[in-house]
Amino acid sequence: MHSSDLPIGVFDSGVGGLTVLKALRAELPREHFIYLGDTARLPYGTKTPNTVSAYAIQAVNFLLKQGIKFLVVACNTASALALPVLQAHFPELPMMGVIAPGAETALKVSGNKRIAVIATQATVSSKGYEEAIFHLDAQAQVLAQSAMLLVAFAEEGLLTGDITKLTVQHYLTPILKNKAFAADTLILGCTHFPVLYKTIHEVVAQRMHIVDSAHSVARKVKIWFDEHPELLMPEDKHLTAPVRFLVTDGIGRFRKTAEIFLAEPVVADEVSLVDL
Amino acid sequence: MHSSDLPIGVFDSGVGGLTVLKALRAELPREHFIYLGDTARLPYGTKTPNTVSAYAIQAVNFLLKQGIKFLVVACNTASALALPVLQAHFPELPMMGVIAPGAETALKVSGNKRIAVIATQATVSSKGYEEAIFHLDAQAQVLAQSAMLLVAFAEEGLLTGDITKLTVQHYLTPILKNKAFAADTLILGCTHFPVLYKTIHEVVAQRMHIVDSAHSVARKVKIWFDEHPELLMPEDKHLTAPVRFLVTDGIGRFRKTAEIFLAEPVVADEVSLVDL
Repeated sequence: MHSSDLPIGVFDSGVGGLTVLKALRAELPREHFIYLGDTARLPYGTKTPNTVSAYAIQAVNFLLKQGIKFLVVACNTASALALPVLQAHFPELPMMGVIAPGAETALKVSGNKRIAVIATQATVSSKGYEEAIFHLDAQAQVLAQSAMLLVAFAEEGLLTGDITKLTVQHYLTPILKNKAFAADTLILGCTHFPVLYKTIHEVVAQRMHIVDSAHSVARKVKIWFDEHPELLMPEDKHLTAPVRFLVTDGIGRFRKTAEIFLAEPVVADEVSLVDL
Repeated sequence: MHSSDLPIGVFDSGVGGLTVLKALRAELPREHFIYLGDTARLPYGTKTPNTVSAYAIQAVNFLLKQGIKFLVVACNTASALALPVLQAHFPELPMMGVIAPGAETALKVSGNKRIAVIATQATVSSKGYEEAIFHLDAQAQVLAQSAMLLVAFAEEGLLTGDITKLTVQHYLTPILKNKAFAADTLILGCTHFPVLYKTIHEVVAQRMHIVDSAHSVARKVKIWFDEHPELLMPEDKHLTAPVRFLVTDGIGRFRKTAEIFLAEPVVADEVSLVDL
């Protein structure tokens, strides 16, 4: 059913998952990808679990009709709120979210197992990172902070400069100054945040390890395919390695924002409008 | 059909329209209101005209089933993108959007007829304010600026302070420094922005008149009811003047944000979850 010459499906609420797509293409350069961004209904970060789960099921049904061999849920909110529901609904489809890989990487790099997370309000409320981290290490401690403005800064393409730095400081200073908690590791728990890496890195100033869940999931997907080589794209189809973009609204805006996230132009005819 | 003892329907993409509701209650304190916020699908400010029109029609159909005598489209984006469609779909329902009243007020207070507008990307792209202003005065000139981050600041309740001020300056300094255009009036063309009034006023520093489209529409609705007194709420029903809140997702988040926008607590059982 999930044959090797099908693409890998990447599902996101909008554009943030493009940081995951970029990392996946670097890890698996010969694979084909189909990226579905539910731009008509973004952001998921302020929605409830029931709503996000319903939207995610529609999206995955749509991707399965197109044909995919593996699903990456490239949105922290959808991973936190809907991944178990998706796994129950689509037991035949191998899939991976961004939360568990990010949690695993954070535990690997952390010395004191005190881990801070910045994410959307919905991801913070879900306690998804806490659960994933405690599942791996019951002694670890997690401090999660909603950082909704950073989503808006990323989408506006305001990635550096004074205002961006002050806003990053607004969210990170309470974490950096919390000597009682003493976090040594910071998870970027929203796929929008890697585009702000430079400014976040400047503010953190070597005081914490920074874990990018986009890169963490890409490495885990690479490992999964190393263990399932029969599902890698066959040799004779390697050369093209195309990406198809499907969005539920606003092709023009998607292309513009996608260029910020992918740091490369997105050709118009690669992007199609779909109705879930 | 639209009997006097029905409530006035107020439709918004989420919470921004609460600034309009607040202004309406001040102008028409004896009226009942039903506020519908499409919180599951907010924001409208990044969506296309077709999508916003489809959502708006669903919302108004829902409000008509509940029973309303007048509709206020309390969202600049929905007003700009969907008002003509709504008027064509529901010819029997008297309705008003926020764009035309804001345009009219701006022309009244402007001396040189050079009007700046800050709004969402979708409202700017629609050229709704340009059209409304030129319709009233073909000699006027309009400079429209997307200010998406301010929506996020308003929703986060970060209404004053250094970062908010810098972000307001980020959008307004190019307008204030544009000596060639020389705007003497600024329209707050998004219903989120009145909650940032204090900071906007500080940045503008008397250099422009500030027009709040929420107050403009409330005054126009009051005038409409003065001209249609048979539709005012009957005397014996005056005392209660309740407001019902309907949202499509996230009652908890709605209540929290609503308190920022209304500057008063929102009682939990006044808010119901609905499916459009």
